[in-house]
Amino acid sequence: MVLTVLEFLGLVAFAASGALAAVRARLDVFGVIVLGLTTALGGGILRDVLLGIHPPTSLRNWPYLAVCAATALIVFAFHPQVARLRRAVLVADALGLGVFATAGTTLALNAGATVYAACLIGMTSGIGGGAVRDLLLREIPLVLRKEIYAVAALTGSVCVGVGHALRLPAGPVTVVAAAVVVTIRMLSLWRHWNAPVARPADEGPS
Amino acid sequence: MVLTVLEFLGLVAFAASGALAAVRARLDVFGVIVLGLTTALGGGILRDVLLGIHPPTSLRNWPYLAVCAATALIVFAFHPQVARLRRAVLVADALGLGVFATAGTTLALNAGATVYAACLIGMTSGIGGGAVRDLLLREIPLVLRKEIYAVAALTGSVCVGVGHALRLPAGPVTVVAAAVVVTIRMLSLWRHWNAPVARPADEGPS
Amino acid sequence: MVLTVLEFLGLVAFAASGALAAVRARLDVFGVIVLGLTTALGGGILRDVLLGIHPPTSLRNWPYLAVCAATALIVFAFHPQVARLRRAVLVADALGLGVFATAGTTLALNAGATVYAACLIGMTSGIGGGAVRDLLLREIPLVLRKEIYAVAALTGSVCVGVGHALRLPAGPVTVVAAAVVVTIRMLSLWRHWNAPVARPADEGPS
Repeated sequence: MVLTVLEFLGLVAFAASGALAAVRARLDVFGVIVLGLTTALGGGILRDVLLGIHPPTSLRNWPYLAVCAATALIVFAFHPQVARLRRAVLVADALGLGVFATAGTTLALNAGATVYAACLIGMTSGIGGGAVRDLLLREIPLVLRKEIYAVAALTGSVCVGVGHALRLPAGPVTVVAAAVVVTIRMLSLWRHWNAPVARPADEGPS
Repeated sequence: MVLTVLEFLGLVAFAASGALAAVRARLDVFGVIVLGLTTALGGGILRDVLLGIHPPTSLRNWPYLAVCAATALIVFAFHPQVARLRRAVLVADALGLGVFATAGTTLALNAGATVYAACLIGMTSGIGGGAVRDLLLREIPLVLRKEIYAVAALTGSVCVGVGHALRLPAGPVTVVAAAVVVTIRMLSLWRHWNAPVARPADEGPS
Repeated sequence: MVLTVLEFLGLVAFAASGALAAVRARLDVFGVIVLGLTTALGGGILRDVLLGIHPPTSLRNWPYLAVCAATALIVFAFHPQVARLRRAVLVADALGLGVFATAGTTLALNAGATVYAACLIGMTSGIGGGAVRDLLLREIPLVLRKEIYAVAALTGSVCVGVGHALRLPAGPVTVVAAAVVVTIRMLSLWRHWNAPVARPADEGPS
């Protein structure tokens, strides 16, 4: 129950981030809906393909699609207001990442994956949707760029894996792990934490 | 039988569109063949992965590959003539979209998917090849851009789903549904139908 | 045993090529690791998804990830030296392509695929990682560009398939086939072999 509420919060968050990116790229209303759906459902479909769940959960249950399409439409209709809420959107995106990475790990454990595989598949599930969004808009995915993104998702997955190994109850562990991911992402955005970049290679006599 | 003929028409159409796009991007003959194959086979492979059909049908039966490679080679050899037939290519591309979206839905129903999942997987199958083509050439996929594309595919999928629910014979229903998709696409190209674009956000004192 | 040694050589080679490409694109240390992992593991994950192996082998066995991450970190730390070794990197990339295309074919045969499907899946496995790397960095994939790439991979796959049909032992056949791929790639780089490009279409009175 707790997991379901969190999962739909994550869907709404990712759908909003995809739809906003589509509005900024001046796509039409169908493009906004398609990108909202792809961003929100992409990570979960990837997770189900890696786990061998056929067809993917989100293609078998209509509320997934309905919630994402409604979110994208609301963003399309009211985007100037939403754009001013850029901070809220970043919070929502962080929430989506946290929920998907941790709930994906729990789902993979329930599907019989080992703790190691479950952590990797959960992290992939959290990262996947945003990567597809950026690829479709021809941007280098956020996960490859400056901010701490993959590390935050992996931390959440590992928290769930540790909780599973200690036989703690899955629901509360997932909530706490998602909160950890959101906190790392927000701190990284707020403090402009970045990882080191390789120093330029010596390529001339300069 | 009707389905097989339609499916190979769709393969030829998508292979031609991928090969032409590759010629325009000045790729060599192998690039033209690879992009023709990817465009024509991509949607069906995605469909089979989502349905859990391993290995995908088109990687088990050589006529799929042979027809697509031959089409790409013919396009490479005779492309100036084909380029003048731009209108014919757009018709063929619309035919490919229609056939793949509707035949994909029928295939998914035959594989045991629910009507809801089958419509989504069929639509994905129709859209997938062209999206891969555009991604590989670093273009924003057609499905996200101005023309009515995903809606046409979805309409065809839903026609097949309704026919299935009414227990109509699958072959004729697929032909009619494919014709509906092609008609929508051609009308949208001919009349320059476009969906509304979000109005620009107020971002300054202008 | 021979296969395992070759496979890890291939992982190191592809991880290095992805990490170097990430350093060139000025990604941070996490981006370098993520791109190294994606390049090295992408082809194998694609192969396992097409074969229906869930979860993919590389997500179940930690040495895969550890070797790739260590390679990427070493590239990040010592990249100026590595950049000067551009020739060595191209050799390694060719080795990776050869090993993955041929070992992927052998793996697919062992998983019960027909010779035809195994050759295609093996070739895809060899090409896949580099294609994902180029897509994430917004470059047109190498496999679509000037050099003989897909043909080299396919030649190696077909060698393995012929060896399987003649009931030759899989280990030595894979080594020989991988050597064939590497030789073709190195000759093509050394002699600047390229495939013909389509002549420009007549588009004006010039």
